[in-house]
Parts: sequence; structure tokens; C-alpha cells
Amino acid sequence: MTGAAGMIGRKLTARLVKDGKLNGESVDALTLTDVVAPEKPAGFKGTVATKTADLAGPGIAKELLEKRPDVIFHLAGVVSGEAETDFDKGYHVNLDGTRALLEAVRRQHQVDGYKPKFVFTSSIAVYGTPFPDDGIPDDFHLTPLTSYGTQKAMSELLLADYTRRGFLDGVGIRLPTICVRPGKPNKAASGFFSGIIREPLAGIEAVLPVADTVRHTHASPRAAVGFLIHAAGLTREQLGPRVSLAMPGVCCTVAEQIDSLKRIAGDKVAARIKRGPDPLVVRIVAGWSERINAERAKKLGFKAETSFDEIVKAHIEDELGGKIPA
Amino acid sequence: MTGAAGMIGRKLTARLVKDGKLNGESVDALTLTDVVAPEKPAGFKGTVATKTADLAGPGIAKELLEKRPDVIFHLAGVVSGEAETDFDKGYHVNLDGTRALLEAVRRQHQVDGYKPKFVFTSSIAVYGTPFPDDGIPDDFHLTPLTSYGTQKAMSELLLADYTRRGFLDGVGIRLPTICVRPGKPNKAASGFFSGIIREPLAGIEAVLPVADTVRHTHASPRAAVGFLIHAAGLTREQLGPRVSLAMPGVCCTVAEQIDSLKRIAGDKVAARIKRGPDPLVVRIVAGWSERINAERAKKLGFKAETSFDEIVKAHIEDELGGKIPA
Repeated sequence: MTGAAGMIGRKLTARLVKDGKLNGESVDALTLTDVVAPEKPAGFKGTVATKTADLAGPGIAKELLEKRPDVIFHLAGVVSGEAETDFDKGYHVNLDGTRALLEAVRRQHQVDGYKPKFVFTSSIAVYGTPFPDDGIPDDFHLTPLTSYGTQKAMSELLLADYTRRGFLDGVGIRLPTICVRPGKPNKAASGFFSGIIREPLAGIEAVLPVADTVRHTHASPRAAVGFLIHAAGLTREQLGPRVSLAMPGVCCTVAEQIDSLKRIAGDKVAARIKRGPDPLVVRIVAGWSERINAERAKKLGFKAETSFDEIVKAHIEDELGGKIPA
Repeated sequence: MTGAAGMIGRKLTARLVKDGKLNGESVDALTLTDVVAPEKPAGFKGTVATKTADLAGPGIAKELLEKRPDVIFHLAGVVSGEAETDFDKGYHVNLDGTRALLEAVRRQHQVDGYKPKFVFTSSIAVYGTPFPDDGIPDDFHLTPLTSYGTQKAMSELLLADYTRRGFLDGVGIRLPTICVRPGKPNKAASGFFSGIIREPLAGIEAVLPVADTVRHTHASPRAAVGFLIHAAGLTREQLGPRVSLAMPGVCCTVAEQIDSLKRIAGDKVAARIKRGPDPLVVRIVAGWSERINAERAKKLGFKAETSFDEIVKAHIEDELGGKIPA
């Protein structure tokens, strides 16, 4: 697992340890890597190898394959805001890192026929405006309007080609915005979607940098982990040649998010959201998709929440011990 | 101009020298590069620099920009058949070479604001089956089924991002199959489309590796040069954020190609076409688009032939001195 020290990485690790199984087989060994040290998970009976490294660095990807993992979860990536402000870093991590990992698998495949399942986290940022009014269909073309979206779309193309050539068995899942992200804000331009729920629930103010008419599609961290596990179990036949697909989520406006927070935690909590327009965030978000139809993913059994209330409740259950702070 | 020693490169050079102007300005200097030595064009009054090099090699792209060309024609590439049989070479030339050139422009832009027009030759191989029955629309998604198509689609994504960021002014033209290619067969899987016209006209046998029901879209080398010149003159406003687009061409079956040859050169010439199925070519061609609508290109003023007869006649005029050999 790359990006193992990140929020989704830690939750996926915890889920794998808790389940003890993946695709019906026991999880015996984990190789966890990130640019910051991944924690060894508590209570895991198998072996764990951790590596703090730049995936695009020479020899790193090869080293990570030493134990020939049956499933690779490639989560590592620089987030959208940072990929936009640091052009070089975005391409280095999001494109070169992905390519280095794919190449290491191919080289190994040529040596011993190694052919893992390769689960790649892509993003709905691969889509760019203008969008159809009735939502983005599964065959919508990829016209990213950010460097982040470009890097994800390029990685999807590589993944499809490496899969077609038989070097690995790839699946790319285009995550909607993950909400509510726990912990501190990150550099993602989408960070405020979580901040306006998380911070008020923690008793502190949150800044809303866009208009509350902004519509977007969200899934909880719990749902995202579920997508990854489900993706790992899909067969080559189920996926066909188009190996990357959009994930389902809850489509709602910022105003509807705030309404959910009010319903669940009260007006006093929701009043902690303050307006503070940020032109860079407004510009980036304006190029993002609003509604993702994700028909293919739903047919393939991917499951997300069905209302934003459920997303707020999942956050309270998973991060706040089920209690709404006063 | 990269790929300047190739067939299109030589014809484009000749056209630029003949016209003496591009976008209403005089052509004063040419920088020509390729992996084999480009010829200095006869009769050119301006300065010519030639460079025989691997575009992806260290420092090469930077060196090519020494004279700060106002227009870059990036034609260099490994053809489809070779990109499929030599995976490393295909990615090295078609992806890394393109990226090296784009990066060199970006670095120069950061130094002195250099911002050239960048005309990139993409291909209809960026499309993959299944296709709509009524032809491929301009907003059809890119789902290449070859490594070549993958490399072209990735390069298009880079071109759009570098354009969006303001480093250069990009336009990508998705060429249909160029037919009739003069000279010797190359390693392109599409080579037979030309071979079955060119070889019989030259008095020799040609092998048809696919069924004559195969439908495809073609444009002459003369039309392709016209596309490149026209693309160089398009403005940022005309192109908008979707900088790559499909070019028009003549959509016909192999049988219709052969009928044209019969009409123009007679049954005896057409009888030099022999059947010889090639599974690799059949497989690659089966993943290609048949009909390209190219509405956007037509609206933007790109012009191709309107019948395959015109394509055969263009070949006879441009390559055979206007005479049909006995």
C-alpha cells in the first residue's frame, strides 16, 4: 500500500487488519509505504514491512515488491491544491510515482510472471467543465482543468495499457470528494467540504471559501475504504478494457451540507461556519464536476451513503465515539 | 520541427519553404530535428539548423529551442506497430520525447516568458472500441486500445495542461490514417492502406492483411500538411480548453479504396493486390475507429479530400509526376 500514512491509507490498513481477509484469502503480510513513516498497525498477526520513501526514487518501487503482494493499493498522491501550486512536485509524485510503480511491476512480470491486482485511486478531477446537466455519465470524456486531474487521467491511461498488455490486473476508482475527512485540514482545494462539518463539531470555527450554492458529490472515508476493498475483488471480466470508473456518492449543495449539520448537531454548531471567499479555491472548484452518475459502479456493487445526514453520522460514529460534543 | 526527416516532416518543410510565410509572417529560420539526419531544404533563403538526436535525451530539447521558434511542429513519434512490439521504445519516444520538449518550453518560459505555438500530431488511435454507429463525435472519450494510442492520449493531456498553465499555446491534431504514403512501407500497422494503392501503381504486388470490408478514415499527405499549417494559425480563443481535436478525412472501406484504384488506374493495376491476413494487424486495426465526424475541425476550417478518388489522384500528382504508370 502506497500512501499508507495518509488518512485513507490508515483506515484501509485498520480495515484489512480487522477483517483479516481480502478477496476470501487471509492477509498474511503488509508492505506499507509513504513519504512520512507509516505506523505499524496494532493487533496484526502477520508480517509488516514499512518503508519511508519517495515512490518515484530509483529502485524504491522494485524494493516494495520484494514480497510480491497479491494486491497493490496505490493511494499515494499530492492533493489537488498542491499539484496546482507546485507543478514539478505534482507531476513527480502523481505521474512519475505511479509510472515507477507500474514499471516495477512490469519488470517483475517479465522476470517471473508476477501479476498483481493493482487498485489505483483516481479522482473525479479527471473531468472538466462543461458538464451535461443530468450528471456525468460513465463514458464522459476526460478533460481535466487542473494539473492534478491531468496527472490522474494520465495515470489511468497507463493503468489501462499495462492491464491490456497483461503486466498486471488494474482497476482505477475515481473517488468523489471524501467527506468528512478527520484530522487537520490538508492542502486539497476540496478540504473545506470537510472543514465546515468537522470544525464546528469540534467546537471551532470553519471558513467556507465558496458560495453555498456549490454542488458536489461526497462519500465518507468509510465508504472510500469500502470502494477499495470492493475494487480489489472485481474480476478482469467484470471490468473489461475500461478499467477506471467513477464511484458513487451523495450529490448535494453546500447549503444542504449545512442543513444536515443543523439537523444532527443543532443551529449553534452550524453557526460556527463563517464565509471567507478564496479566489483560487473558487476557480479550482468551478472546474469540478457536480453530479456523478456512477451507474457502472453501482451495477458492479460499489456502495456509498445515500444522504449527507448519513455522512455526518458516519463521521460522528467513526471519529467522535458516537457523541455529538456540546 | 521534430520528426523533420519523416514523410510528413519533409513535405511540411517543403511547403514552408515554398510558401515563405506562416501565419502571415516570413519564415526566416528553421530548426529541423529527427533521429536520422534531416535534409537541409533546397532553395530556402533563411537559416537552417539541423540536429540528429533523441528528443528525450538530456539537454536535447533545450538546445532545439535556442532560436526560440515562434511555432513548434512536434511530429516525431514511433508508429503504432512499433510502439506495440517495442513497449519501452514507444513510451520513450512518444511520451518521454513529447514531455521533454514541453518541459524545455516551460523552463524557457520561466526564464524569459517564451510562449510558442505548439502544434502536436496526435492520432485517431486515441479512440478505442466500442464506437457509436454514427461515427465518433468530438466529445467521445479517449479509450485507446494500443500503447501508441495511450502515448498520444497522455501527450494530449500534457499539452492541454501546459497550455492551460500558459507555458505555451498548444494544439493537437488527431490525424486520420495518412494515405497514400509515398516511399517504402513503414512499421505502422496502418501501412497497408497506402501499400495497396502505392505498390500496384508502381507495378509491384501489395499484400492486404485485413478483410476488404474494413472501414477507415483517410487523408492525403497533402491534406495532412494543410492541417498542420492551418492548426498553427488558430487562436487560443478559437480552440478553448480542449486543444486537441480530430481531423476530417475520407471514410471508406478497403473495397472502396480498391474500386477507386480500378477507376483511376484500371483493373490490371488493381489485380496486383493480394490477400495475406496478418493476425497482429487485424487485431490492432479492429480496435481503431472507422468513421470520424470531425465537426469541430470542419467548423474551424480544416480541409481534407472529399472522396478516395481525390486521394489517389493527389498521390499520382504529388509523387508520380501526374502520370499513371503503364
